[in-house]
Order: sequence, then C-alpha cells, then structure tokens
Amino acid sequence: AIPLVRRSSSAASSVHKLFQNNADFPSRHIGPRDSEQTEMLDFIGYRTLEEMTDKAVPETIKLKRELNIEEPTAEHELMIRIKKIAEKNKIWRSYIGMGYHNCCTPHTIMRNIFENPGWTTQYTPYQPEVAQGRLEGLLNYQTMVSDLTGMEVANASLLDEGTAAAEALSLCYRQNKRRKLFISHKLHPQTKSVVETRASSLGLQVVHGNVLSVDFSSRDYAGVLLQYPDTDGNIMDFSELSKNAHSNGTLVVCATDLLALTLLRPPSEFDADVAVGTSQRFGVPLGYGGPHAGFFACRQSLVRLMPGRMIGVTRDINGLDAYRLALQTREQHIRRDKATSNICTAQALLANMSAMYAVYHGPQGLKEIATKVHDATLLLAAGAKSVGHVVMNPLFFDTIRLSPNCDVSIIQERARQREINLRYYEDGTVGISLDETVRVADIEDLLSTLGYHGSASELVEESVQEIQSMSLLNSQFKRTSPYLTHPVFNSYHSESRIVRYMKMLENKDISLVHSMIPLGSCTMKLNSTTEMMPCTLKHFTDIHPFVPLDQARGYAQLFEELEKDLCEITGYDKISFQPNSGAQGEYAGLRAIKSYLEAKDEGHRNICLIPVSAHGTNPASAQMAGMQVEAINVCKDGTIDMRHLIAKAEKHKENLACLMITYPSTFGVFEETVADVCKIIHDQGGQVYLDGANMNAQVGVCRPGDYGSDVSHLNLHKTFCIPHGGGGPGMGPIGVKEHLAPFLPSHPVVDPLASLGTSSKSFGVVSAAPFGSSAILPISWAYIKMMGAKGLRKATQVAILNANYMSKRLSKHYHTLFKGKNSLVAHEFIIDVRPFKKTANIEPVDLAKRLMDYGFHAPTMSWPVAGTLMIEPTESEDKQELDRFCEALICIRKEIQDIEEGRMDIRTNPLKMAPHTQAQVITSEWNRPYSRELAAFPAPFVRPESKIWPTVGRIDDIYGDKHLVCTCPPILPAYSF
Amino acid sequence: AIPLVRRSSSAASSVHKLFQNNADFPSRHIGPRDSEQTEMLDFIGYRTLEEMTDKAVPETIKLKRELNIEEPTAEHELMIRIKKIAEKNKIWRSYIGMGYHNCCTPHTIMRNIFENPGWTTQYTPYQPEVAQGRLEGLLNYQTMVSDLTGMEVANASLLDEGTAAAEALSLCYRQNKRRKLFISHKLHPQTKSVVETRASSLGLQVVHGNVLSVDFSSRDYAGVLLQYPDTDGNIMDFSELSKNAHSNGTLVVCATDLLALTLLRPPSEFDADVAVGTSQRFGVPLGYGGPHAGFFACRQSLVRLMPGRMIGVTRDINGLDAYRLALQTREQHIRRDKATSNICTAQALLANMSAMYAVYHGPQGLKEIATKVHDATLLLAAGAKSVGHVVMNPLFFDTIRLSPNCDVSIIQERARQREINLRYYEDGTVGISLDETVRVADIEDLLSTLGYHGSASELVEESVQEIQSMSLLNSQFKRTSPYLTHPVFNSYHSESRIVRYMKMLENKDISLVHSMIPLGSCTMKLNSTTEMMPCTLKHFTDIHPFVPLDQARGYAQLFEELEKDLCEITGYDKISFQPNSGAQGEYAGLRAIKSYLEAKDEGHRNICLIPVSAHGTNPASAQMAGMQVEAINVCKDGTIDMRHLIAKAEKHKENLACLMITYPSTFGVFEETVADVCKIIHDQGGQVYLDGANMNAQVGVCRPGDYGSDVSHLNLHKTFCIPHGGGGPGMGPIGVKEHLAPFLPSHPVVDPLASLGTSSKSFGVVSAAPFGSSAILPISWAYIKMMGAKGLRKATQVAILNANYMSKRLSKHYHTLFKGKNSLVAHEFIIDVRPFKKTANIEPVDLAKRLMDYGFHAPTMSWPVAGTLMIEPTESEDKQELDRFCEALICIRKEIQDIEEGRMDIRTNPLKMAPHTQAQVITSEWNRPYSRELAAFPAPFVRPESKIWPTVGRIDDIYGDKHLVCTCPPILPAYSF
Ligand SMILES: Cc1ncc(COP(=O)(O)O)c(C=O)c1O
Ligand SMILES: Cc1ncc(COP(=O)(O)O)c(C=O)c1O
Ligand SMILES: O=C([O-])O
Repeated sequence: AIPLVRRSSSAASSVHKLFQNNADFPSRHIGPRDSEQTEMLDFIGYRTLEEMTDKAVPETIKLKRELNIEEPTAEHELMIRIKKIAEKNKIWRSYIGMGYHNCCTPHTIMRNIFENPGWTTQYTPYQPEVAQGRLEGLLNYQTMVSDLTGMEVANASLLDEGTAAAEALSLCYRQNKRRKLFISHKLHPQTKSVVETRASSLGLQVVHGNVLSVDFSSRDYAGVLLQYPDTDGNIMDFSELSKNAHSNGTLVVCATDLLALTLLRPPSEFDADVAVGTSQRFGVPLGYGGPHAGFFACRQSLVRLMPGRMIGVTRDINGLDAYRLALQTREQHIRRDKATSNICTAQALLANMSAMYAVYHGPQGLKEIATKVHDATLLLAAGAKSVGHVVMNPLFFDTIRLSPNCDVSIIQERARQREINLRYYEDGTVGISLDETVRVADIEDLLSTLGYHGSASELVEESVQEIQSMSLLNSQFKRTSPYLTHPVFNSYHSESRIVRYMKMLENKDISLVHSMIPLGSCTMKLNSTTEMMPCTLKHFTDIHPFVPLDQARGYAQLFEELEKDLCEITGYDKISFQPNSGAQGEYAGLRAIKSYLEAKDEGHRNICLIPVSAHGTNPASAQMAGMQVEAINVCKDGTIDMRHLIAKAEKHKENLACLMITYPSTFGVFEETVADVCKIIHDQGGQVYLDGANMNAQVGVCRPGDYGSDVSHLNLHKTFCIPHGGGGPGMGPIGVKEHLAPFLPSHPVVDPLASLGTSSKSFGVVSAAPFGSSAILPISWAYIKMMGAKGLRKATQVAILNANYMSKRLSKHYHTLFKGKNSLVAHEFIIDVRPFKKTANIEPVDLAKRLMDYGFHAPTMSWPVAGTLMIEPTESEDKQELDRFCEALICIRKEIQDIEEGRMDIRTNPLKMAPHTQAQVITSEWNRPYSRELAAFPAPFVRPESKIWPTVGRIDDIYGDKHLVCTCPPILPAYSF
Repeated sequence: AIPLVRRSSSAASSVHKLFQNNADFPSRHIGPRDSEQTEMLDFIGYRTLEEMTDKAVPETIKLKRELNIEEPTAEHELMIRIKKIAEKNKIWRSYIGMGYHNCCTPHTIMRNIFENPGWTTQYTPYQPEVAQGRLEGLLNYQTMVSDLTGMEVANASLLDEGTAAAEALSLCYRQNKRRKLFISHKLHPQTKSVVETRASSLGLQVVHGNVLSVDFSSRDYAGVLLQYPDTDGNIMDFSELSKNAHSNGTLVVCATDLLALTLLRPPSEFDADVAVGTSQRFGVPLGYGGPHAGFFACRQSLVRLMPGRMIGVTRDINGLDAYRLALQTREQHIRRDKATSNICTAQALLANMSAMYAVYHGPQGLKEIATKVHDATLLLAAGAKSVGHVVMNPLFFDTIRLSPNCDVSIIQERARQREINLRYYEDGTVGISLDETVRVADIEDLLSTLGYHGSASELVEESVQEIQSMSLLNSQFKRTSPYLTHPVFNSYHSESRIVRYMKMLENKDISLVHSMIPLGSCTMKLNSTTEMMPCTLKHFTDIHPFVPLDQARGYAQLFEELEKDLCEITGYDKISFQPNSGAQGEYAGLRAIKSYLEAKDEGHRNICLIPVSAHGTNPASAQMAGMQVEAINVCKDGTIDMRHLIAKAEKHKENLACLMITYPSTFGVFEETVADVCKIIHDQGGQVYLDGANMNAQVGVCRPGDYGSDVSHLNLHKTFCIPHGGGGPGMGPIGVKEHLAPFLPSHPVVDPLASLGTSSKSFGVVSAAPFGSSAILPISWAYIKMMGAKGLRKATQVAILNANYMSKRLSKHYHTLFKGKNSLVAHEFIIDVRPFKKTANIEPVDLAKRLMDYGFHAPTMSWPVAGTLMIEPTESEDKQELDRFCEALICIRKEIQDIEEGRMDIRTNPLKMAPHTQAQVITSEWNRPYSRELAAFPAPFVRPESKIWPTVGRIDDIYGDKHLVCTCPPILPAYSF
C-alpha cells in the first residue's frame, strides 16, 4: 500500500489564493525568472529590485506611490473583456469612401503575415543582410506603386494619404522654394486639413479652388495638389493643367487611388510629378482609420527630395543582387533639421500586406476586382438615375455623388434601416463609394435605399445603354499601359504558392522569434499573442473611421480607458491618439506648444533648444513645426551641458518656445538634473517637450508630467508593445498637461476635441484618421490591463536590471560610455568600440555584421554616438539570452584581440568578412586564413541545426546609391525556376 | 491631352458577371493555372481535362452528371456563413467532466502551433532527418506522460481515452492470451462502451463491478481496467488490488488524469502495468469532443506490445542524438493482421500542443493549476455540505458527486438559469467537475446553484476545518515523486522563450509551407487558411461533447450539411462521423457489416478478402473486427488477380463476410474491373468495404456507392483538406448504403443514432466522442462549400493530370510500374527504383534521403511495393513545383548513372551519404570524392538563401531500436546554453 503521508497542511490558506486576481501575464512578459533576477541583482551588487531602482533613479523625480491602475487581468479574461468592448462597435455597411474602403484581406495573408510574429516583430531593416525577406516585400510594394501610378520611383510607405500629400507639397517647396500652394477643392477633407496644417507651420500660403482654372503664370506656385479620381468620384483630364503648371515652374502632385489605376490612365500620363495616396484597400482592413500604408511616388529627378524610407537594389560583396535602405542621407537621422522629412516609423508591415495582396491577385486579378467594383457602381448610378436622382459625375470609377430628387432625410432613414452608412454632404447631396466586398444583395439594398424598387437584374436589362455610355472603359481614360508585369506579380496565385513565398521571405529575416534584438532606443520587447489577438477581431477591423460616433462606442471606450491609464503613467492630463508615429507626435506636440504660445500672444517664440544627443526626428520635427533649432551641448559624461543650456535659455529668453529632451537621455542615463532643466525652461517662458521614446525606463518609477514636462509622445510601438512590423505600424499619441489640452489635434470629419466645444483651440490636423492607427491600440490597452501597476513597475525595473547586468558582464571587454549616479545605467547603454579602429582597423559595422554570424541582430549602430553600439535588452529577455548575447560580444572581442595581436590578418578576418553566407562557406574554394567553422559556427551556441543565416553577403551601400534601382530587378533563371 | 480612346465595349455584359456566384477559391486551391493545365495536357497528349478524364476512368463507373452540390461560396462569404452556424451553438459553462474539461489554451501556442501551417501541414514523420522539430515535440509528450504517470515508456499519442483503454486491454490479451477482462463500474461510460465494443469483436468476456472486490485467483483475467480518479471523482488505493492481480498473472490498466497526477501519487506507485487517458485538458480546447490526444504508457517490459507510434532517440551517421519513429515493426504497415493495433493516424498535433503546454507551464506551473482546481473543488464541496447535500466522495481531486438534499430538478433549474451544465446521473445524484478556467465568480454561481447563499469568501472562513480535512494534500495520496525535471520543462516559461522554442522546432521540419510533399496515398494537398479559421472559433472550441443537443445546434447543422454533401459525393446514404481516423473507420465499417450479417442470421460469415496490395490498416482492422483475413493476389500489371478473387470468393462463399478494396488501387490505377469485383462479392453473399483513402481520384468523377461498394471510410485529412498535423488529427467518417445505416456506431451518452429509435441496431461505440473529432469538420465542410460541384470535379481532374504529367516527364528516367487503360495512371504512381540496387547499390532510402538535399520530402517509400517510390502530387501543386520535383529526380538519376558508370564512388557518393547537414559540409575536413557544392546545392533551384536543411545526418534506425530510449535525453552543454 501507499505509505500514509500526513503533513501539516496549508490547504485552507491555499484556498485563499483563489481570490487573488489572476496576474498570469507579468511573468510571461518579463523574461528573467525571479531566481534569475536575484542572481543578476547579486552580480551587480544589489539585493532587491527596489534597492537598485532607488539607486538608479534620481530622488527628485521618483514616483512615491504605486500607479493607480486596476488590478491585472489574466490572459484569458482579457480576451473576454476586449471582445465585449469590441462588440460595442456596430458593424454597418459603410459606403462613405473618402479614401477608406472595405476590402477582402486574403485570409492567408492575414494569418501568415499580420498574425505571424515572424513578420511583425522586426524593426526597420537597418541590417539588410538579415532582412532580405521584408526588403523584397517592400521592393515589391515600391514596384507596385510605381507601376500603377506610372511614376519612376516610389518609397516604402508613409503614414497615410494626408501626410503623404503634405510631404509632397513640402517637396515642391524644397524643390523650387516658392511659398504658395494651390489645392483642389475636390480633395478628401482630411487630406486638405493635414496639408493646410503642415503648410501653415512652414509659413506657406494655400489657395483653394478648381484646379482646372488656376492661372500659374504668376510663377509663384510651388505646387498644385489635385485628386484623381477626386473626392466626389469625378475623373478629370489634367493634361492641360500639367502643361501649364510645368511651363510655369509649378510641380503637380496627384492624390490617387491604386485600384482605380488598374483601369485608369495613370497620373504619369498627364505628367504629374508626384503621386500619393493610400494602399489601404489593397488588403488592409479599415480598422477605424488605421494602420495602413500611405504611398509616395515621383519622378526619378526628384528622388533625392523624397521623404521616407526607400528600398534600393544594390550588390553584396559577392556581386549578387541585394536589397537595402537607399539614400539614407536624405533622412532625419543624418540630416536632422535639414532632412527632407521627420518621418521615421512608417507603415512597413501594412505596405508588405498590400504588396502581397497585389502579388496574390496579380495584374489580371486586380483588374477583375476593379472591373467588378466599377460595374457595380455603373449599375448603382443607372438605378439612381432611373428613379430621378441626379448623378453629378460625368465619369466615375467607384464613387458617385447624387443630388437626390427627394429630401435627403428619406434616403438617410432608409439607409439607417438597412444599417448602411453613406456620405452625406452638407448641401444635401449624397456620396456612395463601392468596393470589392459589395455583392448583388448589397447593391439591391443600396438601390432600395435610393428608392429603386426593382431587382438588380431587371435594372441591368433596363439600363444596358446607360451603363455602356457611362463606362470608363469607353472613355479616353481607359488605361492602355501595362503594369505589374514583373514575374513576382505573376507567379504566386495559388494559395500553396503564396504561402511558400511568404514563408521563404519570412525565413530570411531575423525577428524576435529567433533571438533578442537589442536595438537601443527601439525597445524590442515581447509583442504577445494575447495583445495581438484583438487587433483582428471583426468589430475592430471592419469599421470606417467616419461612421457616426454611436457606431464606434467600443473604440470610444478603448480610447477612454487607454487615455486614463496613459495619463496615470505619464502624469499628463490629456492624450491625443491622432499622431501615428513618434515623429508625428513630436510635430503635433510642438504645434500644440506653438498654438498655446500664440494664444498667449507669444507667437513670436520660435526657438527650440535641442541637445546634440537628440534623435534626428527632434530637430526635423522642430523644423517642420516652424521652429528654429538651437543645439545644446552635452558634456563628456553624456549629461546635458547645464551651463550651455542656461546660457542658451537666457540668450533666447525672449523667443524661447521650448526645449526638446529625451529622458532617460539617449545616452542611457538617468540625468539628475532633469527637473532643473524643466524649471530653467519654464522660467524663461518656454515649454518642455519630453521625447517619450525612453518611457520604458520610467513607467511606474517616475512621471514626466510630475517633474516638469508639458508634453510627450509615447511610442506605443516601443514601451507599449505594438510590434514594429519592420518599419511600422507605430503609434505616437501625445500626452499633455491641462494647459495644452485645448490645442491638441482636431479633425474635419470626426473631431476628437468635439467635447471641448468652443474652447477647442486646435492647431489643426496631423493624420488622415481622427484617432491615428486606432486598430492597434488594443495592443497597448491589453498590455497595461494584463500587467497592472505592480507588473508595469516591475517591467521597468527588470529592463533597468537587464541593461545593468549586461553592462557589467561586458565591462572587462567593452567600456560602457556613460553611466549615471552610482555607476548605474538606465534601460540601455552604449559601448565604445572606437578604439578598435586604431588597434585593429575594426569599425562598428564590422562588429554589427559579425554578430549576424552569431545569430544576432546588431544593437543600434553609431547612434547617438558615432563609433559606438547602443544596447537595449528590454525586460522581456531572460538571463540566458542576455548571457548568449554577451558571450557573442566577448567572443568577438577576442577575435579583435587576435587581430590586435597579429594572430589574425588585419584585412581578411572574420569581422571584416562578416557576415558569412552559406554560399561563401559551402564552397570548394575556401582560401581564407581562418576556418569555415570559425566563420559560421563561432560559438558553441551557434548550432548548425538552428542557425539563422544571413542570405546575402555584406551589402555595398555606396554602389547602390550610385546606381539607384528602386523596383524589382529582373529575375535570374536560377531564381525563377 | 490624353488621346481619346473609344473602343466598342462590353461594359453591360461585364456587369452581368456581378451576378455570378463568386467562385474565388477553386483557383486558389488548384495549383496549375489554366494555361499550365493546357500545357501539361498537351504534353501528355490530351486537349482537355474532360478528354483525359474520359480515357482515365473506366466507362462502367463514370458519374454521368454533375454533383448536386450547391454553388460555390467565396472565401470571405464562407467566414460569414460558418460564423452564423457556429453561433447556433450555445456556450454554457460545462462542469460535466467525464474526461472532458475546459482549459486555457495558451494563446501563443494556439497561434504559433495550431494556427500555423508550419506545424499543421506535415504527415507522420517518416523522414526523420527533416522532422526533428516535431519529433522533439512528441518526445517531450512521451516524457511528460511517462513522468506524470510514472510509467517507463509512453507513446506519441492515440486517438482518445476510450480507444487507448481498448488498446490497453488488447495488449493484456496479447500478452497473456486470457479471454476475460474485468472492468471497473466507475469508468467513464464512453470508455466502458468503447472497451466493450472492442472486446466483443475479439470475443473477450467482460466482467463489470467494483474492482476492489475482484477475485483474481481463478487466474483467467487478462487484465483489469480501473480509473484513478474515477468517473465520480473518487480516489482509491489500488495497491492491494495490484498485488493480487499480479500474483495471479493479471495486468492492471489504469485510466487516469494528467492534471490530477501533478498532485496525486502516480499509477506506477500502485504498480499499474499500463496507464491511459487523454491529454485534452493540457491546453487543447474541448471542441465538442475532439480532436485531442489520447495517451498510453506502460512498463518497459511491455513496450513491444505497445500500440501506436513511438518516438525514440537514436544516433545519426555522425553519432549525434537524433529522433525518429521507434519499433516500427510492431505496426500494421509491417505486421498487417498480426500488428499490435490498426492505428495509423493518431493525434500528433494535439500531443504537441499538450506537450508545449507542459513546457510552457513547467512542473511548478502545472502544480499551481492543479492546486487551484483542487482548492476550488474543496470549496465547492464545503459549500455543498454546508447546505445539506451529501458529498459522496471521501476524497477527490476536481470532481464531486452529490446526493442532493432536494429534488434534483431544483438544482437543474437553477443551473439552467445560470447557463451551467452539470452531470445529472440517472439516480438523481449530480456530478460537478472543475477545471483551470473556474474563477471565484463561477464558484459562487455553482454555490448558488446548490442553494448556498453566502459569498465564497464567507464560505472559506466557515469551512477552514472542513477544507483542511478533505484536502488531498493531507492524504496518503499526495504525490511525493518529482516529475518534469528535464530542462525542456524548466526553460521556456516566458513568452519570448516559448515562441523561440516553437519556431526553432518548426524550422527544422519540411512542411507544405516549403515544398510539395508527394507522399503517395497521403494526398498532401493545400490546407487553406479559410478552411482552418473556423476551427478556432470560440463557438466551436468551447463546447463539451455531452451538452444537451439543443446547445449544439450549430454542430448539428454542420454535421447534417457535411453528411449530405459527402453522401452526394460518394453515393452513400448515411454517414457516421464517429471514427476519428481512417483505420478507425475501417474497423467501424467492418463492425457494421458484421452486425448487419448477424441481423440477417449470417453471423457465421467472418472471412474478409483483402488484396495483398492493401494498406496495412485493412488486415489489421479486419483482425480487430474479429474477421479472418484471406489474401487476394495481384497480377504483374498491378490489377487484382480476378481468377484468384473468384476462386477465393467461391471457396469461402459460405463464410464470406466481405472484401476490402482500395480504389483507385494502391498501385495508382483505375482498375477496369472494380464493378465486377463488387458484383462477385455480392453474389457470394459478402459486402464490399471500399477503402476511401484514394477518394481524391474520384470526387465528381465516380462514386463508390454507385458501382457496388457498401461502405467506405473517408480520410477527411486527405481528400477533404484536414491538415495531418504530422501524424494526426484525422477524421475517418464512414459512408454506408441504406441497409447498413442502422448498424452504425452509437454512443452511451449522446447517441448519433437516436433518431432511428428502436430500429437502431448499432454494433457499439468506436470513439470516446459521439462525433469523433468534431472541431475539425468545418475544414472539410468549408472545402466543399467553396469548391462547388465544378471545382471539386476539376480538383480531381487536375490531381490526375498532375500525376500523369509527372509520370510522363519522368518516363525517360524512371519506369512507372503500373498504368491503367490508355497508359494513364490515376492520381498517383509508382516509380520502380529496384534496378539501381544492382547497377549502383542504390536503394529507395538513398533516393529518399538525397531528395532532402534538393529540399524535398521523399515520396512514400517501399509501399505498396518494396523497392519503389509512390508519388502523389495532388491538384494543389502547380507545374513549376512539379517540374522542380521532376528535375530533382532526374538529377538524382544522373547521379546514379555516375555511379553506374564509375564516375562516382559506389560507397562514398552523394546518395549514400545523403542527407547532408550543415555540420557535414561546413567543416574543414571535407574528404569526399565529390564537392561540398554538389552535396548541398545539387541543382540550380537549391539556393543558399532559401535552402531547407536536414538538421541531422542519416538516422541509424537499428541502433535506436536496439538501445531504446523514449524520453528526452540529457541535454549537452552546447545545446543548453
Ligand atoms: C529617441 C527617439 N525619438 C523619436 C523617435 C521617433 O519615433 P518614430 O519612429 O515612432 O517616429 C525615435 C525612434 O526610434 C527615438 O528613438
Ligand atoms: C489506403 C489507405 N488506407 C487506410 C489508411 C489509414 O488511414 P488513417 O491513417 O486515417 O488511419 C491509409 C493511410 O494512409 C491509406 O493510405
Ligand atoms: O529608428 C530609429 O531611428 O530609432
């Protein structure tokens, strides 16, 4: 028999645990187990996380209480909870148009890209050798945009159509330095608003009107912005206009629609200089406005003025085709306030989805979809006419505007009964936009909404003539030029094949599913499945941004709850969710400051102080916001040069608008002086913009709103778990103190400041969608709800612990450049690799590439300090992974030593030749002075059975920029098989 | 201006297309584009698919009309439609227990395994060098089962608890040849039924009763089956019983619960010989009964009698640890009617999910879950007692049985109001089983259902004593032995880490996301995302199989619609969804035949004719069904030896029960005689069982029910798109003609034959769940709904086209062994590689392994004909992929020629040394007479940037079977880093 075991038990006390809220998530999100934390704390010389935090964070700014955030929700509870919220959104059929369309996301793309961490968890492909998959996807995107618009070059996405149009007009201004813009009155209202807001900060004058009757002869228009088809659905011939504009030195920017362009002559054929728009309807759900990719295409001659990331073809060390970010010198991280744009995070993931949608459908498939949409619209127009409404469009693709023959309220009521949203113009006319999801039953519902009482098929019989005469395909606008002829758009049309293509690309790239990505300043933490799941709930995805608010109660609740929590976390009073990237948030925050100052009659204040250590977006945004940037020095120890700051603040006190500061500093240090800095600025009448990129070191520990900042953006794609998708989506909501609240972004269609009534003093509009990329906000909401106050604080503490553990583990081998009081770093740290240049001719890039051979993505390279690497482990990495990474760096240090001490050749060594590809090491002709094993398996943990390989050798950047190719290169026979 | 283009247009006729039903799916499912089909047809000498079909399929059996299946549904419509059906299921809280429990599937496991084609689309790991990932997962499963039950060895899953118990008792019988079994009266009723049904076909006598009072001294019991904890929740000490049984030569089989065993002494500690059960509650949703993995563990000494697949550790050619299927000689594909079991498809995917659940939680986490469940049950029991119900269990883990102090209908009504399902025994007592999803609010609802009106926390205060005294942890049953101590269960507890572990395993394996898997007879076609999506809808996953039928109306509709379509496709009159694998279907079909014969008073008929070419499951199932197998010869041309058949049928006419035949034959040929064969059997009073594994060559083209078959199973995981998950799940529903319908499987709890009333003459029960693996039926339903009649027929035709195209393309290099009339094969074909043994010492396994170097999974090897390869491309592969595969085989043929002609060494050549791993080719010491490049990149399409590598060298099978290790081996330091 089983021997009788009787022990004193704590059964009853254990039962009490049933009542404890189920905080199962923090220990899944936070990497190191408690025992590992203890070990690591011990290693850096502390007993507890609290003790360490106490020493790391300046006394003056510490938050002395627990965050007032509700108790954590368990992972499974969370799904129940968020579903309930989602279902408060009502999913009507929306035919509102205005740049947002229903579409059928191919399920296989949704599941294998959007719902797949192998595609979502990367950062911008700064290390192209381990990012060829997504780079190829983005090159497909560029090719698609370029083909469909007919333009020579396209970029790898912008944030949305509105900002793309604004960027385009900035480009015109930069190109010809003229300060006047002409804007069609037939733009989508949000495009118009975003453009106007941007123009106003640059001091550009905007003229509205009918573009067909502009007189360019005064030769003072920088550019003209028109839309094709326009917001009412009309299609107009802009050839003459273009000729006039060009002959007077004015650039032509055309906002357009990719689906329409499969049937319509592209803007290039009326000689537009720039084409912009959104690729949302190419397989990206509405998501209440975002995220989706804005596109930007232009003539080759303007390419160096183009904003945003662009993928280019270059060659690798073996002379093979390879992809990478092209022409980076245009960008803010190099050019700062001289940059073409402040854009950093864009919409890479969504661009990839749209490109894959085109790859899956191919030119023929897209044309069929467009034809179906156009046909449905023809039928609808015929029906409308037949019952006596006036169709105001001579020609249209998918959108008609009706002047009803009855009171619009009758149509409105019929639509309401059928749960249909239309666009109701203020003048009583009605807009209807159709899309690929429209079925015959939907058309019939629309017809009966319009008062047509027959069936759709009867209508076809009746209207053959009418339909024939209205068809685009019988017009001069019918497209004749080919597009998407590249094999990539003509090879993957079965599901088996597209799945394999997506997987092949996925497997070329290092993502968080393989190993840590220690990119300093990027906070590459876990993006958990539970956080991601709500994003694809139908009640979040299938909702148009301009539906009446009572259909979006779920979103309203989500925003409200998230705002409340973010305010509590930051110490701010109000959040605007409109900015859909950090840089966008900076611009918005600075604009709010500017408006606030103006409202105080201090509109002359326009100096923005920015430490030289700041991220490139800071000066670029300040410039965009119409401010003048003054640089503040930093001391040798990495801290702000307080004397310089005080002097500058004093010097500019009359005109001081604000200071931009990152905290903890971009050098990874909790500066002791931050509260003083804020006070100095305030004392001189300025405002403080605190760049929230490093919130991951602060959540639950200190709050910018408490120690003196007035406004911050929060990169939700860093601290708050939105995956970066390889270059976006992101979200950059801004938090502000009460006094700035009335100045936050507004919106011409759905005004987020509506509740303020007349006290709203918004500076304008920054994004096309009222609440930015709404559809990914559930991620951050879920993160906060599952972590709770204790979990959030602990995450911060472990992020700090991890950084300090690594810094210490590496200290015998690499010098950590900056530390704070008590020799602690914040949540990231910079190691100095400059000395190796002299001792071994080794540069940061060599370390970065060599790390790939060890299976790792490099840390942030040469930013914020040239010649260094900035490492940010985040709290989600456990000790094992940190150790593995440290081991890799230590091994590399030994390899450097081998060079230093002559055991390894100074030219042909594993660092200089890194990364090593399969093609290189699996060759009969190995003639290097080190072994293949050292090349490919340099440490015991780099195992043949699990190694992640770079798929190309070291990239030749200079060659690529010299021989710029930004669309898909011809395919070699070996590939095409 | 744009030049005016006016063409005559067909706009109006194009509008008509709007009305055509949107069949977007067939062209996604079917690989070759229409133009490719034409090319391929041309190559094999036909103009159209119809012409080819006409020549391929015997005139006598052709279906001369289109299938009567509704018009195809578009992919996006399908989701809307299936959601509506799903939502007809009502999701109440079920505390019914009986072997099915709610659980929290970790979302990350759901998304990254179950929803990930990289994990779901493989077949059984017949080629271990490219399947180490899932093999490791399954080894974890075995280790988990073995640790928790305390048994020495465990297998890699069975179909469910019921069949596992039945297999266990068969094992007892095989071991000691005794014909009597003792079965506890405290088993779950479905376990009891499945076991009894099995026993009856083997002619074994079953005795029921209280196991504690059995007298074994007659020494005629083969085995005793007991349950721990039992179906009422009781925990009993079986030590004495075991001792008695063993001393009288009787084996002890224990059905048990893995979660309970984290707290309870394992069956090994009372000396059980076999432990069985289900691992469903380890992270696999209820799914209305399935799929989930049954487990089977036993003493080492019984291992050679163990049913099912078992993973073993062996070494590869380099002497490194590697995993593969162990002891295959036990199995039906070798031993046929002498096999330990007929099991083939099991539940590998679900076993992997459960193992990953244990990896994620670890021993500590599992124990905490179990403790929570137990504590909740203690509290509930205390509450029940406090209001006067009698808790009938002296000791329990998660289940109590109550004798209410009131009329049970009162409890029933209160439960109904709260949407709670309990187990209502016939005697008026009530069973309640709790699980990890139970929250305090649920306990309070349960308490109020029982009439307790206080709060849960009050109850805790009141019942401290009571709880203490009832706790397992204060009993002799408290577990003291450790479990899951292997590092794999103690390393992956953060989400980052488990995601990386899952990805690392995934990336070791070839699946359909990489390349075609041409396994003959396995029909590895596309498993599309749209088909998969419904399976994880909450309304399909979260429903207990024993809920009242009015809560399962959605499932009922699904079954009904799928049954209707499958009947139309096969020509049968009735379907049973109970069998959850093909082999299970065979057994069920044969049992139905037997019962039918018995009902006609022809119970003496027990001869089953089976061609020697049949799949091993056929004879194994016949044996299990109590029939005597007589083999029928096949001719040199692969067809059935009709004279032999006629002679045998004649010879056995008095006792002829049936014939089992596969059509098209396992040789890939449409035999002309099949209708005659059926007639011959019927004429001799026998029934025809047509093995439906090859339905993929018949759908829409011919129907077994039309040309003479009486019953077939349909491997839904072949023809009807259920992904095979690397060894299951599958579904093997059987279709029967009217006369067999009353004899289909029934069920003791939810009887699928209920509608037949007293005319039901069921032979018994084959699966634990009434409708088998219900939760994956939406896949097949969706496939049929999206394909429509035309699409289904076309799929069949393209499957045949693809096979004929490949056979012809390979014909100059490989001889296709068997062809039908007009030299056409069916949907698969066999190439003869036997000659190479003599000419080059090359065996099929060498080709199979060499194919891995080309990035391919081998075809079916040496079945049905030794020394051959059987290739089945399926309709989902396009011409490019077929060409790639043919190229690979042609290259290999040239390599063989190099050996034949002395250019390549006969021992050390790329075939004999295949597959080549990274470790082998990336080594300084390459000393083979061929190049590294030839080893690794043997064809232009095998590219370094996309190559799929085998992760171990060639497996040493014999070593592994000699040194059997079936749990996780110790981890080497290099791995564990
Ligand atoms: C310090 C800092 N500020 C601003 C940004 C810009 O944020 P975003 O990329 O979201 O535009 C970044 C981006 O990495 C950053 O690190
Ligand atoms: C011809 C044939 N019959 C029966 C079976 C058994 O089916 P299952 O694996 O579903 O049990 C198979 C499986 O491959 C088969 O090929
Ligand atoms: O993307 C960044 O520049 O950090």
